[in-house]
Amino acid sequence: MQDLHHHLNFILELDKLKAVYRKALIKADNNRYENSAEHSWHIALTSHVLAPYADSSVDIARVSLMLLIHDIVEIDAGDTFAFDHLAVLSAQSIKESAAAERIFGLLPAPYNAQFIDLWNEFEKAMTPDAQFAKAMDRILPLIQNMQNNGGSWAQNSVTKNQVIQRNQYLEKSAPKLWHYVLAQIETATRNGWLKEE
Amino acid sequence: MQDLHHHLNFILELDKLKAVYRKALIKADNNRYENSAEHSWHIALTSHVLAPYADSSVDIARVSLMLLIHDIVEIDAGDTFAFDHLAVLSAQSIKESAAAERIFGLLPAPYNAQFIDLWNEFEKAMTPDAQFAKAMDRILPLIQNMQNNGGSWAQNSVTKNQVIQRNQYLEKSAPKLWHYVLAQIETATRNGWLKEE
Repeated sequence: MQDLHHHLNFILELDKLKAVYRKALIKADNNRYENSAEHSWHIALTSHVLAPYADSSVDIARVSLMLLIHDIVEIDAGDTFAFDHLAVLSAQSIKESAAAERIFGLLPAPYNAQFIDLWNEFEKAMTPDAQFAKAMDRILPLIQNMQNNGGSWAQNSVTKNQVIQRNQYLEKSAPKLWHYVLAQIETATRNGWLKEE
Repeated sequence: MQDLHHHLNFILELDKLKAVYRKALIKADNNRYENSAEHSWHIALTSHVLAPYADSSVDIARVSLMLLIHDIVEIDAGDTFAFDHLAVLSAQSIKESAAAERIFGLLPAPYNAQFIDLWNEFEKAMTPDAQFAKAMDRILPLIQNMQNNGGSWAQNSVTKNQVIQRNQYLEKSAPKLWHYVLAQIETATRNGWLKEE
């Protein structure tokens, strides 16, 4: 029963991710900011929906769990904008590792280590599962911004090359999606939603 | 490429679930109302965290996907309070079936039918996977309300027997959790958060 209390404490702690707000806008809800919990739901489900486009080596059940947990560290570390300065992003990375230790550490062994390992795998993006997961995390803001006059890109003067670079994971893990994304980025640039330089 | 557009339309449609608000309160975010998208994230992840308590016949990857999609019908049908009158709940069920046809129908075959079947399996709650999924959907509000002076129970004069009945799925699919829940309901009743009758 002691173990159950640890599991339940972790589940309760997760509630706090609903108070971490991102730069992304929810068009369907009066363009309010998106929080990291609902974002995590959306990309986990997106991974299942786009599974037919994934390379055959990808295990979607693992990808989905990776995406469900990938932002939990923001409970302590907060959200940073994807296109922020390198120094900001690097400081964030240190904060996130400490957060992973504390938050997943609320779980009893061996579950704490299992979650930390899965989170590290996502962060390092060296395995096919982690690369497809990263690709999902990155394609969704593109889909949202394309439907919203450039959304967070336009608001933050993001460049075409920044978005191409950020979606590069698709090239190997889902080539059809990669071609789609490149075409969308061209359209966004023509529309002035992304800066050319 | 035609198929991809259907997949992406479905993914975009999902954004609307972030604008469907439930009766549950988010203590961590100034007790604002919870939306169905972030709720779906929380219980999908809860199913992974509580997997060690599930009966061995339960397939957690299927349960998790079921929970990711279980509330999508609310985009058309809206949320109803779990303890509403029977007539309201029955009218809701008809609206939700039509919503499932329309929304999952945005996907191309065979994916539309696969999602509709999974959603129906959850609704009917006849399989071990669906019963554990239902149990997760029901234990989480209990965990939240116990940390929030009764939360939505106290606000809506919910009775002890209503909550016992609602969590009954746990009895078979996760007996240890069932005993925990019964003890929590006793505490909530003693505290006046649940009505005795």
